[in-house]
Formats: sequence, C-alpha cells, structure tokens
Amino acid sequence: MSEFRHDPVQKRWVIVAVERGKRPTDFAKSPKDDKAPKMCPFCWGNEDKTPPEIYALRDEGTQPNTSGWQIRVIPNKFPALAVEGDIGRRGLGIFDLMNGVGAHEVIVETPDHQLHMGDMDVDHLFNIVKTYRERLKDLYRDPRLRYGLVFKNYGKVAGASLSHPHTQLIATPITPRTIAAELDSSREHFLAKERCLFCDIINQELALKDRIVKATPEFIVMSPFASRFPFETWVLPRVHAHDYTLASDELLYNFAKVLGDTLWSMRNVLEDAPYNFVLHTSPNPVVRPGKPNYWETLPFDYHWHLEIIPRLTKVAGFEWGTGFYINPTPPEVAADYLRAENKPESEHKKHE
Amino acid sequence: MSEFRHDPVQKRWVIVAVERGKRPTDFAKSPKDDKAPKMCPFCWGNEDKTPPEIYALRDEGTQPNTSGWQIRVIPNKFPALAVEGDIGRRGLGIFDLMNGVGAHEVIVETPDHQLHMGDMDVDHLFNIVKTYRERLKDLYRDPRLRYGLVFKNYGKVAGASLSHPHTQLIATPITPRTIAAELDSSREHFLAKERCLFCDIINQELALKDRIVKATPEFIVMSPFASRFPFETWVLPRVHAHDYTLASDELLYNFAKVLGDTLWSMRNVLEDAPYNFVLHTSPNPVVRPGKPNYWETLPFDYHWHLEIIPRLTKVAGFEWGTGFYINPTPPEVAADYLRAENKPESEHKKHE
Repeated sequence: MSEFRHDPVQKRWVIVAVERGKRPTDFAKSPKDDKAPKMCPFCWGNEDKTPPEIYALRDEGTQPNTSGWQIRVIPNKFPALAVEGDIGRRGLGIFDLMNGVGAHEVIVETPDHQLHMGDMDVDHLFNIVKTYRERLKDLYRDPRLRYGLVFKNYGKVAGASLSHPHTQLIATPITPRTIAAELDSSREHFLAKERCLFCDIINQELALKDRIVKATPEFIVMSPFASRFPFETWVLPRVHAHDYTLASDELLYNFAKVLGDTLWSMRNVLEDAPYNFVLHTSPNPVVRPGKPNYWETLPFDYHWHLEIIPRLTKVAGFEWGTGFYINPTPPEVAADYLRAENKPESEHKKHE
Repeated sequence: MSEFRHDPVQKRWVIVAVERGKRPTDFAKSPKDDKAPKMCPFCWGNEDKTPPEIYALRDEGTQPNTSGWQIRVIPNKFPALAVEGDIGRRGLGIFDLMNGVGAHEVIVETPDHQLHMGDMDVDHLFNIVKTYRERLKDLYRDPRLRYGLVFKNYGKVAGASLSHPHTQLIATPITPRTIAAELDSSREHFLAKERCLFCDIINQELALKDRIVKATPEFIVMSPFASRFPFETWVLPRVHAHDYTLASDELLYNFAKVLGDTLWSMRNVLEDAPYNFVLHTSPNPVVRPGKPNYWETLPFDYHWHLEIIPRLTKVAGFEWGTGFYINPTPPEVAADYLRAENKPESEHKKHE
C-alpha cells in the first residue's frame, strides 16, 4: 500500500510507498539491457506472467489470457496505487494524507516486441488511441477517481523498465498539479475573453508559422513557444475539444495518423532517442457536490492535447530547484528539423 | 544570447537558447568518462582555460588567475545568461519574453580534483558556504537580479559536465516558480497564524522524531514528510532566518559542519550516488516601487534551507505530466538509514 502525502510548502501531492519500500541497495546502478530478454511478460505466450487482462482486442476465436491478442490491457503487476480500499482522507498535524487508492494499468500496444509506434500502421494506432479513450471512460465510472493520466515511457532513460511497446494509465483521486495549473490558466483566460487559451495559441502559431511542425485539417503539431526541453512537441486538435473521452472515432483516426507521423519524424531526427508522452485532458466530469474540485463544474474551457518530451538532456539541480528550465534548442529550430523529416505516404503501408 | 520565455499555460519562465542552439546531433548519447581527463580547467595550472576569476581565496603571495587558490569563483564559460544588456521585457501576441540577462558563475570548491564535499574539513567547507553568501550579496547589488540560485550537480546523472568539485550560481531577473510557490505558502501561513510554516514543520518533526536525521543545537537535517525522491534530505537552521545573505559566520560554521556530515552519510549509505543540492532563500531584498515582485516587501516569513536530492530513480512521464511524484522509499526509512551512518568526530581531522 502507498499513501498520498501533501507537501504544505509546495502544495504538491506525492505518492509515497509505505510498508517496506526500496532500500539503498535496491537502486541498481547499471540496469541490464533487456533488448533480448529471456522472458518478456508482454509477448504472446506469456499471458500467465501478468495479472488477468482487463480488456483485449483479440483475433477471432482466441481466449482471454492466451495468445492471439493485438492490444492487451492489464493491471500493473507492481502498481503505484491500489484499486481496493477506502480513500481515508486525514491530517497529521500540519500535514495531510490519504490512502494510495487508484488504478494503475498497462496497455500493451502490440504483440511485436520491437515495433516503434512511428512504424505502426494507422489502423492499429487508431485501436490504441481508442483503447485510451475506452479505459478512461470505464475508470471514470468510479467517482473516487478524479483524473486518469495516460502516458508512455519509451527507452530506459525515459523510465521504461520493459522495452516491449506499452502505455501506462494511472487514475488518481486528485487532479494532478500540472493539469490543475493548466485548468486554472484556461479558466482565467476564458473568463476574461470568452475564448479558449489553447485555441488562441493555435491561431497565433498558425499565423506566425515558425513553430508549426505539421498542420492537418484536424490537428496541429508544434514546438511550444516556451519549450522546456529540446524538441518538446505538442499535438492538439484544431477544433476546440476539452475532453478526450468525448472524442469521436473520426477525430481519433486522424489523431492516430498524426501521432504516428510525429513519432516517426522524431525517431528519425533524434536517432531513436528515449521519450515520454503524456495526454492532457479534462478531469473526470462526475459532479460531487461540496467537493473542492471546482474545475469539474466548468471544464469546457480546457483543450486536450498530447505532450511529447524527448529525453536528450539531463535535468539538473537548477531545474529541480527553480521549476524553470534551460532549453539549449530554440523551438523554431526544432520545428524546422521535424518539418523537414515528413513520413512519406508510402511508409504508411509498410506494416499492414 | 538567450531569452526568457513565458508559458501562458503553465505560467512558467523558460530560458531558451536563441541564435544557433543545439542541433539533434549535438546530444551525445554516451558522454565519455572524465574521471581522469587530459585537461581539467578547474585544476591548478589551468587558470587560463577559464574566464578571469571574480573572487578567489588564495595562499599568501599568489597572483590572480594563477595556481595557489583554495576556492575560485569564475564566470561560467558557457553561460545560460549574459551579464551585459538590457532586460527588454516585451510581448509577442499572447506570449511574453525578455532577454536572457543574468549571471552564471562557477564556484570551484577546492584544488583537489577528486575530493568529495563529505570529506572536506569543516574549516574549508565554512569558506565555501561563506563564498556562497558573499557572491549572493555582491550580485544583489544589481537591482535587475531578483534571485540568486546556488546549486550543485554531483555526478554525470545529476548533470555535472565536469567532475572537479564545484557549485554553480545563477542569478535571474525573476523569482523562480518553485521559490515563488514556497514564498506564497509561507506568507499565507504567516498571515493566518503569525508563525513561520517551516518553523512549524521543524517543531512537529522534532516532536514526531521519525523523519529527523540529525538535530544539532543550530540545525535540523530531515527527510521531508512528502519527499518526492528516495533519500531527499533537507537541512534547515533551527532558529528562524529567511535570508541566507544575512547568516552570521557562526551560523555558517555550524551549517558547514552539518552539511559535510550529511553529505558524508548520504555518500556512504547510497554508495556515492549522484546528487543535486539547491539552496532556497528569500529573493533579493532590493525594493523596486511599482514592480510586481510583492514578496520582497515582506520576505521575513520565509525560512532558508538546503534541499539535497540523490538521483537514484529515473523521473519518467508520469512525473513530467502531472507534477507529482512516486517515491518508492518512505522518508521514515530513509531517515533511519542516514541516522545510522553518522560521521565520527575522528573523521573530521582526516583532511586537515
């Protein structure tokens, strides 16, 4: 079991392991390479090495928890949060804490142990991004869960402990601080101007052009003006939409295509660098009268998007200590590189 | 030249290189080990390989920018910010930016290329922490500079590009976001209770005992309740003090001793793990009527301290995407380990 603990100085929640936890000797200094592991729990034939599946897209006639799936969702074997149990909000003198209640799932994206998301065919990617939507919708039936965070760690440096392609989903009883800050900014802008902050940014960037990586009729891919990291890249729907769980199949098909194209470009430009991506969307819209999650009463001013962060630089003391960042690559230069490396249409058929 | 760019979503300033910046191929994948470099610009005899010194503690009779120094402060050869120039605050549509004006200095802590701070003798450490104070005081004579950030990157993983012991100081024309958040929390607590938030935390932790690593008459070393990282450790003066630049020599002597002891313990428990430390103190107290840096009118509610973060875990997508953290080691367990590894008094004479 873990605890959510609140830092009264930074007003930040941290998930802290209680009970045993990691000892100093548990932090391996040079983890072994698992490019060719003896046993990958996410490959076909090893379904019994994971907890039973929550959802799977399966070839006809195959049984749950056996081979034959194309996408498979399972509970994380070492979850940061536990689904069962009471939330137990309480104080400890000046501190606040609650039980580590939540969900921690793994979306195994493909049976292919080595397949990069940028090389997947669009139909398959479409099924993956639809799976994100369906898992979020399902988890949001639990009113304890305020926010579902869909994220991907690709490569060891980015925190991936297994190299088999997978995305994670952590649903928490609080709206995370970063999202809360964005909801606040979006609301403030909306209340002042009756326009969406992200829509305004998109329109300005389309006019200025120098940070736009790609513009399709449905999506914008761009290097944000105040990029924290070299080649940080955002993917946003052009038409205002606050909630990923409400996205239509048609929109998600276009999202799948632009996401695959973007990851393909980044992989080529950055020589297969490790990366993280994180889906930013509005919180669980369940109304809880009297609860202090006030964004949920008016989330329509938000704008969902995906943030991709290649892990090219080391984040050092300066960044941890200040919360601001030194980015050695101008986003305009990053956009130039990515724009020049466009996935050709012929590549789209390769894996079909 | 660089720019400060403001992210209107996260309300965060980022320092972005403009002009050339780093190209994709500039991000080396496996930097070479510099444990035994051919030429270390921070060693005696190589003083001409750095910009001229700003300050040095020197053996009697030695000339500036030659050997014979014990501590040497120099401008960073590749500064993130430039000292000269106008701040140029301006807008770009929805965005805000200003020129990358500020200071970026390196405090070379010792001529000894390999000496760990935990092994330095107290008198020498005292001179180092006094140098921090004197450099901050000097930089704060420039009213453009709102905050001086003293931080250390130890080990490649923590962002150190040179292994020779050194601390960095970056002074910026804005109060960094993390510090601003702490100043806000401290003020809010002070206005409500007329007590310091950090003093309240110290008193509670002293009563509870389980997260206290060390308590001397002058300082507390503790694992914070909501530690973001395994073995995160804070060093705080017991008597309320908001501004490091006002610390007396006597207080700083005690700080030097407790800092050395703490780094010694951490090095032994964590097998010489990479770490960062960051000094948190109140901003430049220069009053600028009409400027929106309102903390400066009442900074006395803050409490300076040093935060030490060992780099044992990889910060992954979850942390970047949410601003909250998963810590696999309970701070109570971390405190137990550090408490058990206490630097014996006999060790204090080793390097004198």
